[in-house]
Amino acid sequence: MDSFARRRWHLDRATDSLTPIASLADRLDAWCEISGREIAAHVGDVQDADFVERVVADFLPQAVVHYAEHSSAPYSMLSGRHAVETQTNNLVGTLNLLFALREHVPACHLVKLGTMGEYGTPNIDIEEGFIEIEHNGRRDVLPFPKMPGSLYHLSKVHDSHNIHFACRTWGLTATDLNQGVVYGVQTDETALDERLVTRFDYDELFGTALNRFCVQAVIDHPLTVYGSGMQTRGFLNLRDTLQCVELAVLNPAAPGEFRVFNQFTEQFSVLELAELVRRAGRELGYDVAIKQCVNPRVEAENHYYNAVNRKLLELGLKPHYLGDELVQSLLSIISRHRERVITRAIEPSVRWHPGEVSTDEETLVQESGITSG
Amino acid sequence: MDSFARRRWHLDRATDSLTPIASLADRLDAWCEISGREIAAHVGDVQDADFVERVVADFLPQAVVHYAEHSSAPYSMLSGRHAVETQTNNLVGTLNLLFALREHVPACHLVKLGTMGEYGTPNIDIEEGFIEIEHNGRRDVLPFPKMPGSLYHLSKVHDSHNIHFACRTWGLTATDLNQGVVYGVQTDETALDERLVTRFDYDELFGTALNRFCVQAVIDHPLTVYGSGMQTRGFLNLRDTLQCVELAVLNPAAPGEFRVFNQFTEQFSVLELAELVRRAGRELGYDVAIKQCVNPRVEAENHYYNAVNRKLLELGLKPHYLGDELVQSLLSIISRHRERVITRAIEPSVRWHPGEVSTDEETLVQESGITSG
Repeated sequence: MDSFARRRWHLDRATDSLTPIASLADRLDAWCEISGREIAAHVGDVQDADFVERVVADFLPQAVVHYAEHSSAPYSMLSGRHAVETQTNNLVGTLNLLFALREHVPACHLVKLGTMGEYGTPNIDIEEGFIEIEHNGRRDVLPFPKMPGSLYHLSKVHDSHNIHFACRTWGLTATDLNQGVVYGVQTDETALDERLVTRFDYDELFGTALNRFCVQAVIDHPLTVYGSGMQTRGFLNLRDTLQCVELAVLNPAAPGEFRVFNQFTEQFSVLELAELVRRAGRELGYDVAIKQCVNPRVEAENHYYNAVNRKLLELGLKPHYLGDELVQSLLSIISRHRERVITRAIEPSVRWHPGEVSTDEETLVQESGITSG
Repeated sequence: MDSFARRRWHLDRATDSLTPIASLADRLDAWCEISGREIAAHVGDVQDADFVERVVADFLPQAVVHYAEHSSAPYSMLSGRHAVETQTNNLVGTLNLLFALREHVPACHLVKLGTMGEYGTPNIDIEEGFIEIEHNGRRDVLPFPKMPGSLYHLSKVHDSHNIHFACRTWGLTATDLNQGVVYGVQTDETALDERLVTRFDYDELFGTALNRFCVQAVIDHPLTVYGSGMQTRGFLNLRDTLQCVELAVLNPAAPGEFRVFNQFTEQFSVLELAELVRRAGRELGYDVAIKQCVNPRVEAENHYYNAVNRKLLELGLKPHYLGDELVQSLLSIISRHRERVITRAIEPSVRWHPGEVSTDEETLVQESGITSG
């Protein structure tokens, strides 16, 4: 099921994926030519309950991989309208799916894309979805308390609570994949045919840190580090995200279980990533600068961060770790598409707290000691 | 601001408040005659962002008491459409309000009606909004983990998270009133004029336990206890809910604070309430039977329950505790409106898990030993 929402957002904002994305029909044809397998496509909006129910009732899936959510924190912080659009799309789409599963395939395994961003940056270790709490001499295992950093991330927290309820109350079965920040541009499958190339976003709204840095390095744009860059997050390679989804589907949660996996392979600070791109870029002849912008977000920049990611490794995840070679391979793929880069869309303009920063401050850019290192 | 949603739901379902409710215009006139004070009314839907923003921008409130939410757990469990309606109304209305406050009156104190039902029934003491957690040798104070019992209650959890975010990120100021189950039919103000009489719902969707039991006692209908009746909750008198709102407004949260009050005065099991109504009713000559129905909800019936409710008492709350006299006063007010009772709407028909109970079981009614006691 696809509503082409991402394509429409890019159209609206005159931005685009770095890699040229074929039409869905062409991509399905390509996959069929290569693999001999047909994928059925349904164009529609998951906010349309009848559409979701019809597809579920016709297909009777054993597993659903639910990627049909708005996925941009800055987009959700653009305005009240954008916040409402993000939360409504994500909640209503997921509720529609839960009711359709309850009605037609209650034993189906729902694999839902969550995000590590749901947890925020608590001062304790981040467990996988649940935590045992001892309090006044009594104990319980309860959902891990969450303090996410944007209205988009909150929509994912809301979803997790709704799905957990559906498992507790109706006996549905779900795995919530709390995914870290994804980097990378291809997988074994997408490399098989140009038409299968996947999306690579680097703009302010949809680009993620490492991907954006690599594009910036190639086009000779300083790497835009928000604030001190000491913000630490979990990261993973695009290849590993697909491994994780596959592992989850092949090893389903127990009937009625709401299972949470923290889906990342390594932790880095944003500044560590920028330094890595600079080092790897230099070897390829790119002269990479790091620019520490005023942080457009409201977030802790110096914080404890230690998240558990045991369960997917126990299921057999074989991580592709991040290193100079991987960054260099990214840089060379990007340089092939260099002429497609739309520079206008790179600088951060969406402020988490519009009232907080004056116009003067907005243009302030610190070229700190670290950047010339 | 009022959208008359409750009036429309009753219209749709051919149910009504036991007490006759005057039009909003008549109620405002009555209050003006009695107090000499005018209340400005705006008819509209909080899901309409322009409407909310216009009212906030014109009025520039120092405090907002936000009662504009769908409030029925069974309604939210009727179908996917009802679940979506409940969650969308509550989330979108609150988001619209938060953005309007941020834009026009960021120092305004938002007093938001939450519910004790957000917490569910954890096996540890329920704190007021936050809990200090020690984990692997580190500590943090985090939002209390919540496992509510319906999609309506989940909408309030989602709201609490969104409002907390607005305080953390934009510096808004809010008090979340996690209210227990309210009983009672009048306050000092509503007793002043027949036109000020407030709503008294006893139907399956909007009635709360004690109120519903009292109506049942008066019309010679067995008290409908769901399951064993051992479910324990926090309760409070209608007079005390208004005291609590007043105390919250007069003692605002600190700027930028998200403050949570557990707003109830006593804990009872549902069966204790039924026994109380039977005893108090007998003294007035009512022959009250207790009927334990198959529980239409999916919920723990035997569980630990101990919730903290310190903060409102510290601010000066003077509870009206529940006793035989109060129940008898309720019964006599109800008997005045006896001819208005719509019996059809009392029996529980909305099942939390429609697939779980067979048609035969649905009609099964246990006349247990307790009821003949």
